Amino acid sequence: MNSNIKIIKINSEISSIILNEPKTYNSLSFKNLNDLLKALKKLDADTKVKVIIIEGAGKGFSAGHNLKEVKRLKKKDKYQKLFNLCSKVMLQIVEGRKPVIAKVHGAAFAAGCQLVASCDLAFSTKEAFFATPGVNIGLFCSTPMVAVSRKINRKPMMKMLLTGEPIKANYAKEIGLINDYFSKQKLKKEVLKIAKKIASKSNLTIKIGKQTFYKQLEMPLRKAYAHTSKMMTVNMMAMDAKEGISAFLEKRRPVWKNK
Amino acid sequence: MNSNIKIIKINSEISSIILNEPKTYNSLSFKNLNDLLKALKKLDADTKVKVIIIEGAGKGFSAGHNLKEVKRLKKKDKYQKLFNLCSKVMLQIVEGRKPVIAKVHGAAFAAGCQLVASCDLAFSTKEAFFATPGVNIGLFCSTPMVAVSRKINRKPMMKMLLTGEPIKANYAKEIGLINDYFSKQKLKKEVLKIAKKIASKSNLTIKIGKQTFYKQLEMPLRKAYAHTSKMMTVNMMAMDAKEGISAFLEKRRPVWKNK
Amino acid sequence: MNSNIKIIKINSEISSIILNEPKTYNSLSFKNLNDLLKALKKLDADTKVKVIIIEGAGKGFSAGHNLKEVKRLKKKDKYQKLFNLCSKVMLQIVEGRKPVIAKVHGAAFAAGCQLVASCDLAFSTKEAFFATPGVNIGLFCSTPMVAVSRKINRKPMMKMLLTGEPIKANYAKEIGLINDYFSKQKLKKEVLKIAKKIASKSNLTIKIGKQTFYKQLEMPLRKAYAHTSKMMTVNMMAMDAKEGISAFLEKRRPVWKNK
Repeated sequence: MNSNIKIIKINSEISSIILNEPKTYNSLSFKNLNDLLKALKKLDADTKVKVIIIEGAGKGFSAGHNLKEVKRLKKKDKYQKLFNLCSKVMLQIVEGRKPVIAKVHGAAFAAGCQLVASCDLAFSTKEAFFATPGVNIGLFCSTPMVAVSRKINRKPMMKMLLTGEPIKANYAKEIGLINDYFSKQKLKKEVLKIAKKIASKSNLTIKIGKQTFYKQLEMPLRKAYAHTSKMMTVNMMAMDAKEGISAFLEKRRPVWKNK
Repeated sequence: MNSNIKIIKINSEISSIILNEPKTYNSLSFKNLNDLLKALKKLDADTKVKVIIIEGAGKGFSAGHNLKEVKRLKKKDKYQKLFNLCSKVMLQIVEGRKPVIAKVHGAAFAAGCQLVASCDLAFSTKEAFFATPGVNIGLFCSTPMVAVSRKINRKPMMKMLLTGEPIKANYAKEIGLINDYFSKQKLKKEVLKIAKKIASKSNLTIKIGKQTFYKQLEMPLRKAYAHTSKMMTVNMMAMDAKEGISAFLEKRRPVWKNK
Repeated sequence: MNSNIKIIKINSEISSIILNEPKTYNSLSFKNLNDLLKALKKLDADTKVKVIIIEGAGKGFSAGHNLKEVKRLKKKDKYQKLFNLCSKVMLQIVEGRKPVIAKVHGAAFAAGCQLVASCDLAFSTKEAFFATPGVNIGLFCSTPMVAVSRKINRKPMMKMLLTGEPIKANYAKEIGLINDYFSKQKLKKEVLKIAKKIASKSNLTIKIGKQTFYKQLEMPLRKAYAHTSKMMTVNMMAMDAKEGISAFLEKRRPVWKNK
């Protein structure tokens, strides 16, 4: 397969998906979105993988849709297909079993910014920047804003959408679009440290937790408590919770069965 | 018409609505709310206007409802009418086609603070302050909190509501109630700069984007993606997106048809 | 009654609930949750009490569930009961009539962090810290995240949940989990100052406001305005709003009937 989406195995538990088409700034073309969706599904199904990292090759993280391709598509049903596919990728990240971390070393624009927002965690270099610039080309960032507006408050979101202007890493952290930023030299090491920490937890616990998290967010308070109480009971009846609590009380490291 | 609500045409694309009853601190009385609603509808329907600014004359931005009037109303159905009318004004801002910017040079209290929160963007002087002080007069800021609690997080909102204390511009920015603040000398220039930037975009693109933005916020994630994918396809089939993308690829300025 | 939950009357209008089982770091065991629920209901029904403070005795605020007890429970229906009871306590705080303030002088972990998040306001010492560390023992903080994720944005929430790491008071303030933090010496005085300020308002006004606040948050915008306009009219027809507005116009202190 001749793909611009590469999977790099960092260790037995952590894998990185590389957006690797630097000449288009890792654009999210039909082909790349399809391959990204496949890569995400593959790693999500791999029982050994515990954490997924997404990063870009070359100068930027991702410039979003490929505008040359977009221009060529012309027909309404093709556009609908493209935006549906892009939404599918983002939903796979949110609804998948494994934590996904965005590692951003350069520009994350439009659907690229959406990708960062869709990940559970995001870290960047100090020099990285983020934008929803669709308004500049007459095409409002309507699907990207679904992800971004669920992470940051509305006034800063509207400024990004209406002006199309990029924001810097320190402001992106301030408003909650990314978790933190580091110097170029340190980003790799810091992301790996966090990925390893998360990989040291129980697979099953994190699967239950992640999926419950996004579900309860869409429920009113009473329903959210009913749902999470039920899921926490399910979690409690699993081997890993029993082992984790025993280990804690016995002051030793837990040994996860990951099931 | 003898109105306290004035429309000032800044240029062919930008208009400012002035709340101009300084002796009541630009109170949102029945009459003023009615005139404000009319002004908003008029500018929203004017195909040449691309950006609306709201500002106050005299010392403050707006002190909210006119308490002398409120006292006089006395009857339940009159109160209901007043609060309904006020809500209608706020909904007009949110559901309208054009971006609305609050330009705040002084106190924005109660329904005045709600007006700031309801605008898509808000900028203030360093000296401006914001409050939901209804609790001090026994009348909780229940309608204002609808707008404010959708822009800022809940703990700072509750502190404002329960203590009635004003917050300063720098804290208002920190929590997301306003986008930014400037010195008194610079506010006008900075707001105009942003208004001009937004006015340089396609009218149609912004109309689709703004209306889609507030709709998708009230949907669960999957429904939000279905809706925005559809709206982005509609946007893509319009002249301005085609022109915008062509201009981008040809490295020239786009010429909007605004339709 | 031999209870670890003590009610201290600070003055005729302010009462403090002390979590007082330092040897378990004020764990939220079955017994303690039951007693906490009773204490909250008692103070909520006491017409003289206007503000409730929750604090912890000994080294920390609360470590969450009692893990020794959790280990002993073993059966599914007992876990379900425990998590249901805990949710009931949190819902009592949110749905009650009186403002509840968390006063945090040390660690607030898991359900202890949930308790802080559930309160209307929260203040801590500079040294206090907050965590949702369930992932470390294989039991994801699924019910705690219901409360915390409704106060802070999603990316910082996910970092807390996936890594289990504690955050410090200054960061907790930055993201909106607490309102503010003070030096150890000042916390008591500052919390009391705010409690007294809130106690100086009308009981009835605050009851209407608090209950309306959490309800409207779960409604779409138009419905939220319809509901709050109705509640504000109810509020306006009460004695305290009439008195409050008269006092304001006459430049005197209002005398609340609290009904």
